[in-house]
Amino acid sequence: MQAINWTGHSLKLLDQTKLPAIIEWVECHTYQDVTWAIRQMIVRGAPAIGASAAYGLVLAAQACQNELSSTLCQEALARAAAELRATRPTAVNLAWAIERMLQAGAGLSGRTLAARLEEEANSIAAEDVEVNRAIGRFGAELVPNSARILTHCNTGALATVGYGTALGVIRAAVEQGKQVEVFADETRPYLQGSRLTTFELMQDGIPVTLITDSMAGWLMARGGVDLVVVGADRVAANGDVANKIGTYTLAVLAKEHQIPFYVACPLSTLDLGIQSGEEIIIEEREAKEVTHVGDVALAPEATRVWNPAFDVTPARLVTALITERGIIYPPFETKLMALR
Amino acid sequence: MQAINWTGHSLKLLDQTKLPAIIEWVECHTYQDVTWAIRQMIVRGAPAIGASAAYGLVLAAQACQNELSSTLCQEALARAAAELRATRPTAVNLAWAIERMLQAGAGLSGRTLAARLEEEANSIAAEDVEVNRAIGRFGAELVPNSARILTHCNTGALATVGYGTALGVIRAAVEQGKQVEVFADETRPYLQGSRLTTFELMQDGIPVTLITDSMAGWLMARGGVDLVVVGADRVAANGDVANKIGTYTLAVLAKEHQIPFYVACPLSTLDLGIQSGEEIIIEEREAKEVTHVGDVALAPEATRVWNPAFDVTPARLVTALITERGIIYPPFETKLMALR
Repeated sequence: MQAINWTGHSLKLLDQTKLPAIIEWVECHTYQDVTWAIRQMIVRGAPAIGASAAYGLVLAAQACQNELSSTLCQEALARAAAELRATRPTAVNLAWAIERMLQAGAGLSGRTLAARLEEEANSIAAEDVEVNRAIGRFGAELVPNSARILTHCNTGALATVGYGTALGVIRAAVEQGKQVEVFADETRPYLQGSRLTTFELMQDGIPVTLITDSMAGWLMARGGVDLVVVGADRVAANGDVANKIGTYTLAVLAKEHQIPFYVACPLSTLDLGIQSGEEIIIEEREAKEVTHVGDVALAPEATRVWNPAFDVTPARLVTALITERGIIYPPFETKLMALR
Repeated sequence: MQAINWTGHSLKLLDQTKLPAIIEWVECHTYQDVTWAIRQMIVRGAPAIGASAAYGLVLAAQACQNELSSTLCQEALARAAAELRATRPTAVNLAWAIERMLQAGAGLSGRTLAARLEEEANSIAAEDVEVNRAIGRFGAELVPNSARILTHCNTGALATVGYGTALGVIRAAVEQGKQVEVFADETRPYLQGSRLTTFELMQDGIPVTLITDSMAGWLMARGGVDLVVVGADRVAANGDVANKIGTYTLAVLAKEHQIPFYVACPLSTLDLGIQSGEEIIIEEREAKEVTHVGDVALAPEATRVWNPAFDVTPARLVTALITERGIIYPPFETKLMALR
């Protein structure tokens, strides 16, 4: 399953707002199309939006490939980069991919710029899959046989270019011949767990049971969870983790029940420029995500809503970070800085 | 707002599966209608199903009011009682109300039985409102001015005969002139928070903000909650509390953030016959409550689901029980036994 397909002149995105009921592709011909698709969550998941933004910049470069002035090309690219970067504030992979693309294209123009950026975006995409497989290999060591694994949101092939981060760990454990049983939080309000994680795991034949977010604590209290593994949208220098709303609650519950709490994160998710999670901007999204499912109203009209899309889990609640360079145990700060 | 109306020969229930979009009444002419309505959650909330079952027994008695044999009448009543009791296993108010009705009607037959049971059901209903007002008066003392109060599920007029338990505490605080701000968990899967609690509070003009269940932890971490107050479906002799799924998670979170966690419970919710929450049967409901909202599928077909309707919060996480006889602080056991 691959949700991001580059055609050479357009970016095809599997519309994740419609899964699993409808399999429909959205084709982006301009960087503005990509900007719109990221905002609408047609594509979501920190690594996936990073790669999509990279291809968005290729489209911006292709749009001025007959322009020979390096200054004009670079200005157009900078405009596109600023718009793409502003789509979603919390995940750092977006800024990371854009920065990498701008550096790759620095000083170039016309067809040279477009070709160089296409090459770089393809590298970002290919590396993402490699990185996820490495995360999976390291992470699988943490999964005992017959493990009952709780996960949140969707961190699979749909959230990345392929394979997945936290779901990559689960996939790798299964590939190593381990039996696992996955519990997927439905992940309100956007329902990435019920719509996407169950879909991916069922396609792979990995046993999965869906629960509401509110059931995770009771499942743990009954002894039903051996470990928790989640993804990340941004990890600060001290190991604080921004991830999908609800992650913090799971981390508190895991501590209460002495269950390991693992965060699978590619190094592109590290933001060593910030000291702690307090500096991370948490995106707040519109009320309708909470008050409606499709066109069905779940709440009275004009209900006031607070809808933060992410939360921050303090490093003290994180058992280990699983990266493509290995498993990192606390204290995180010096070890993370050494990876710079 | 009153969701339970006795007409003298039928029980009219406000259909809570359709609120807030549609205001529709279901009229029960037989005790079997009431049995069906409780199972379907047309009426829900521990005190409300207790009162409904009481009127169900009145309907059963009215159905044999021309029968003069006390044996036959009592047999018919016992059959109805058994069916009503079996509708939902977790809340004890149901069994409590049925037991009280059977005692009131013991040995009677015909019109005498029907009249005596109607009188008793009316008493149960009237007392429920009085009890809730008393709970409200005591509980309001625990609410500081400008309190930001987190609540779960619906514990208001719709969950009781009137006024509410945890919402009764909030209503009483407001009546005392206190300013409050309520955060209502949406309460998946049945959405009592988004559908019913917001509806009730908005009708009363009490400020309420809706959040998903997964946001409660992050709201607390940001310092946004001064106290948590919830209802109860059954309280064991040691103070363990069975309540709507998700309550246990809130209690763990409240402890982590040193926020008071209060349980508003009429004495009819006490089950001194059981030592601890381990003896409470937790109802598990059908998968469709989790996989669908109305006719909209949220998950792939045949997704496996675990759907416990309640959980048990251990007494050690409960700051105090708010009853109609006063506020009870730990240790609970001897104080609860003294209320017997």
